[in-house]
Amino acid sequence: MRTHTCGELGVKHVGQHVELCGWAQSIRVLSDTLVFAQLRDAYGVVQLLVERSRVSGFAEQKRLLETLTTDALIGVKGKVVKRPDDMAKGDSQTREIELLVDSVQVLNRAMALPFNPHVKANLPGEDVRLAHRHIDLRRSELQTNIRVRSKTAMAIRQFMDDNGFVDIETPVLFKSTPEGAREFLVPTRIGLSECYALPQSPQQFKQMLMAAGFDRYFQIARCFRDEDLRADRQPEFTQVDIEMSFVSKEDIQDVLERLIQHIWRQIMNVDIKTPFRRMTFAEATSKYGSDKPDTRFGLEIAQVPQLTSDQNTVAEVLVIPNGARIFSTKELAPLTSLIRVSQINSESKLTSMHKINDEGVTGIGKATLLAQSIKGNVSALKDFLVSISARSGDLLFVSERSQHITPANTTLGRLRTLAAKMLQDKGKLDIPADKFDFLWIEDFPLFTRQTDEMNGPTLQRQVRGQHYDLVLNGVELGGGSIRVHDRQTQEYIFKDILQLSPQVRDSFGHLVTALGHGCPPHGGIALGLDRLVAILTGSASLRDVIAFPKAASGRDLFMHAPAPATPEQLAEYGIKVDKAPPKK
Amino acid sequence: MRTHTCGELGVKHVGQHVELCGWAQSIRVLSDTLVFAQLRDAYGVVQLLVERSRVSGFAEQKRLLETLTTDALIGVKGKVVKRPDDMAKGDSQTREIELLVDSVQVLNRAMALPFNPHVKANLPGEDVRLAHRHIDLRRSELQTNIRVRSKTAMAIRQFMDDNGFVDIETPVLFKSTPEGAREFLVPTRIGLSECYALPQSPQQFKQMLMAAGFDRYFQIARCFRDEDLRADRQPEFTQVDIEMSFVSKEDIQDVLERLIQHIWRQIMNVDIKTPFRRMTFAEATSKYGSDKPDTRFGLEIAQVPQLTSDQNTVAEVLVIPNGARIFSTKELAPLTSLIRVSQINSESKLTSMHKINDEGVTGIGKATLLAQSIKGNVSALKDFLVSISARSGDLLFVSERSQHITPANTTLGRLRTLAAKMLQDKGKLDIPADKFDFLWIEDFPLFTRQTDEMNGPTLQRQVRGQHYDLVLNGVELGGGSIRVHDRQTQEYIFKDILQLSPQVRDSFGHLVTALGHGCPPHGGIALGLDRLVAILTGSASLRDVIAFPKAASGRDLFMHAPAPATPEQLAEYGIKVDKAPPKK
Repeated sequence: MRTHTCGELGVKHVGQHVELCGWAQSIRVLSDTLVFAQLRDAYGVVQLLVERSRVSGFAEQKRLLETLTTDALIGVKGKVVKRPDDMAKGDSQTREIELLVDSVQVLNRAMALPFNPHVKANLPGEDVRLAHRHIDLRRSELQTNIRVRSKTAMAIRQFMDDNGFVDIETPVLFKSTPEGAREFLVPTRIGLSECYALPQSPQQFKQMLMAAGFDRYFQIARCFRDEDLRADRQPEFTQVDIEMSFVSKEDIQDVLERLIQHIWRQIMNVDIKTPFRRMTFAEATSKYGSDKPDTRFGLEIAQVPQLTSDQNTVAEVLVIPNGARIFSTKELAPLTSLIRVSQINSESKLTSMHKINDEGVTGIGKATLLAQSIKGNVSALKDFLVSISARSGDLLFVSERSQHITPANTTLGRLRTLAAKMLQDKGKLDIPADKFDFLWIEDFPLFTRQTDEMNGPTLQRQVRGQHYDLVLNGVELGGGSIRVHDRQTQEYIFKDILQLSPQVRDSFGHLVTALGHGCPPHGGIALGLDRLVAILTGSASLRDVIAFPKAASGRDLFMHAPAPATPEQLAEYGIKVDKAPPKK
Repeated sequence: MRTHTCGELGVKHVGQHVELCGWAQSIRVLSDTLVFAQLRDAYGVVQLLVERSRVSGFAEQKRLLETLTTDALIGVKGKVVKRPDDMAKGDSQTREIELLVDSVQVLNRAMALPFNPHVKANLPGEDVRLAHRHIDLRRSELQTNIRVRSKTAMAIRQFMDDNGFVDIETPVLFKSTPEGAREFLVPTRIGLSECYALPQSPQQFKQMLMAAGFDRYFQIARCFRDEDLRADRQPEFTQVDIEMSFVSKEDIQDVLERLIQHIWRQIMNVDIKTPFRRMTFAEATSKYGSDKPDTRFGLEIAQVPQLTSDQNTVAEVLVIPNGARIFSTKELAPLTSLIRVSQINSESKLTSMHKINDEGVTGIGKATLLAQSIKGNVSALKDFLVSISARSGDLLFVSERSQHITPANTTLGRLRTLAAKMLQDKGKLDIPADKFDFLWIEDFPLFTRQTDEMNGPTLQRQVRGQHYDLVLNGVELGGGSIRVHDRQTQEYIFKDILQLSPQVRDSFGHLVTALGHGCPPHGGIALGLDRLVAILTGSASLRDVIAFPKAASGRDLFMHAPAPATPEQLAEYGIKVDKAPPKK
């Protein structure tokens, strides 16, 4: 239907007669003898000149163009000409040429669009755009994001294939796994109340593939969790899933580092240095108050044990240099509320904020109440502040938390992140978007409860000693571990460590059996593809890198999913509606 | 954990000290001073020699090896040596070398396996093997199949990427579509009886991507159908899904032909000639009695209109040369039962089988009753048989079917396929496995009911005038069509042709709306990846090209999916078990 795409036309086509197809936009009737328009396709935009002197039946074609709404589909024939030099601006090669139109044909008229996706300033709210996703996806940002996603997946697959990994599809119709996150159920007609469940990850399947001798497995796998949706969570998401036999942690990390290097080179044209920095969980949480620290900036937290005599308490200090001068008291409000929430959540025992005033560090005790147990140790705090050369105008956070819980995020860690964001917004802190600070977080505490595990835990409480997370600029890209590969150890962990009931242990019977049939030592990792692409495209929301995302409510506002099932449909599966589901 | 894989070792490694890991097999204690064993990994097998003169603590290592069961995991250190020339047989490069073992370490003991996957003759039935899939997958056939599948997917992706197609993931959590095949429902907690449904294909999403301007889309997509399972159907399957804008049927067929060429070159090292042969639906069903004919052999069906005076009847003849001599009367039984079943199904009005005896074609009337309406036309039949030079000993099938229904398979078509298989088994017909007879079947009747459509119909009754199927050696590899792209036509088809209820039409509202917002002319195709890989690997069953298939019952016999959901789990979704689902 076309001889060229709009995007490919350039000066080398000048003089050629071509046929193009695409969406009409910016139609302007300049005079009785001239109409300007733009023709857009997936590859670029071409300026169209419809001149009376050239076009037979000009009056009719002019009338036709006048009636077209934005994004009507047209086909045009014409001759490529060079644009006048003073108009050949812009970064697209097609800006250097334009098309002298011979004829215009309407391929599909368009009703008035609910919004114009090409005018960024006038875009409606996200829900309106999600409800008309076919139009929103015409935006150049989303076009780019989805194409970068495709290229990223291809780069990953190419690397994995080149490195001897076998791409193996694992089932989506799986079974419910006790103790995991809530899973979507899929009723069947097989038997009374029998359901498949959608997998949270291919974790069990990939371990079985190791037992089956596949040695190097990967898959870009769809995964599912029926969680209460947070702002940036999707009920279905995609992960790059990798597992290897006969390997150490270092072997897996090496593959991942080279994979990341390959992706960044292919997609960003940026060289990433390897090996990545290793940091223990203890260092990350004490120095940055987070198990996924953004290390592109300092603002490190200091442990000051002399502030407390309570053996059960960790006393910490965060200093924001000059913070009390940069922010007005009003501007400090977000930090104050963060502290308030952390007290309600009992994340910290007590956290307080202070300004160091003109009298120097001696002023500290006067500003506000100090954290409870530190009260008696003001002199120790003063000594500390002197030792770090704290100055008048600095902002000071002092916090106490329990020695016995090591949360993935401490209150000071959250304050550090928020304060950094506020400083950046004020132009007082440089957090370079083009710096990629990859980190391995290692040495996780044994048997902690997992709250946000990309690697699809089969159990929420899991042995994490051999675990590692890959972190980039404060974002957890993925995580993995060296797995338990022998039957006895696995049984011991299930029974004695995790104290699973016999019934729950039974449901993992196939795993234990497979380990007992000659399963090699193995380990792996999983990366969140959605997050990875969001970083590569600089997208604030995962919804901007997914072609058809669900809204925060879990609904597809465009296709109208989910939809009520009829009693007859449910009866096919031997189930019926009982009552409204409990409120989320 | 290893310096090399078993598969990569060759004569160039002779003299080197290496460390290997893998599964022990064929352990044989040859004498007090020598133990033979084989070490297998994902890449090959190496012969191990454990000699007293070399191994420190030989007695202990010998005892250890004696206690190992098949497929115990071991690591060995040793020196690569050349095998004696008279033993260096076999097609693997590793056969030329063996390993003089210095030490053996057990990495994971194995319980006795329920069956030995390496002894083909002793394999248990498929259900036993499916129940121990981690062991069955160690078989070299399945290892090869799964690896070929990975390479095939990679070849497809590489070709599509090279040709400017964008790989776009579409949702698995979709909504139920009226009038399609039965879909799996996924209850949600969003509202009373609200369910997602698993998609039968990405059909609607890919059309929306065309409306969104993606121009060239592809995806290797998981699809789902809750059908009563036939022997070789899976509730989840994978299709290569392709859609293009601004194209004709020929453009799509050209891309597909080049894709097929690329796959066959990459995977089979075979050059496929293009363009593929085109055949109309009418020719396929009349000449081969099938809309997916195997054209590697003749045995064509002849229409003989003079056999009947009934305008509403098609009279057809199939001759199997020498068939009455090749097969005994007992051996003809499968053909007789096929005829009987076709009569019960009313597929044909009447079909009869005859032998042409020594008296020549004149004997025909005596053998058995002729099909009813032909009875009065025996002389016309004789004339026909003379015209095709039918001879004594030929087997003859005469059939009548309604003029007004054109089934995808006629009775004579089924008889042709079965007779060909029987002739092949007797060595009387050559159907070369290495001949790839690709065909486009086109010009489908308008508005027929679709029964087996790879391309994921949104409606079972669909406009099929612009439809095309890709057929290979009697197998439907896929199908597609040029879609309706303008709103008015789509509405007309929904309302006036298909006579959908307003309620059903509403559920397609987003599709109609999107067509009205400037949707380009577009079309596409979908290929069944499972079938494609089955052909490439010469596998008889789709289950042999899927890592974790469901048994014919729909169950995963290994992971034990589906499993009963608890009342508490169902209550989360506001549903409860009503009664056992109706029998399938």
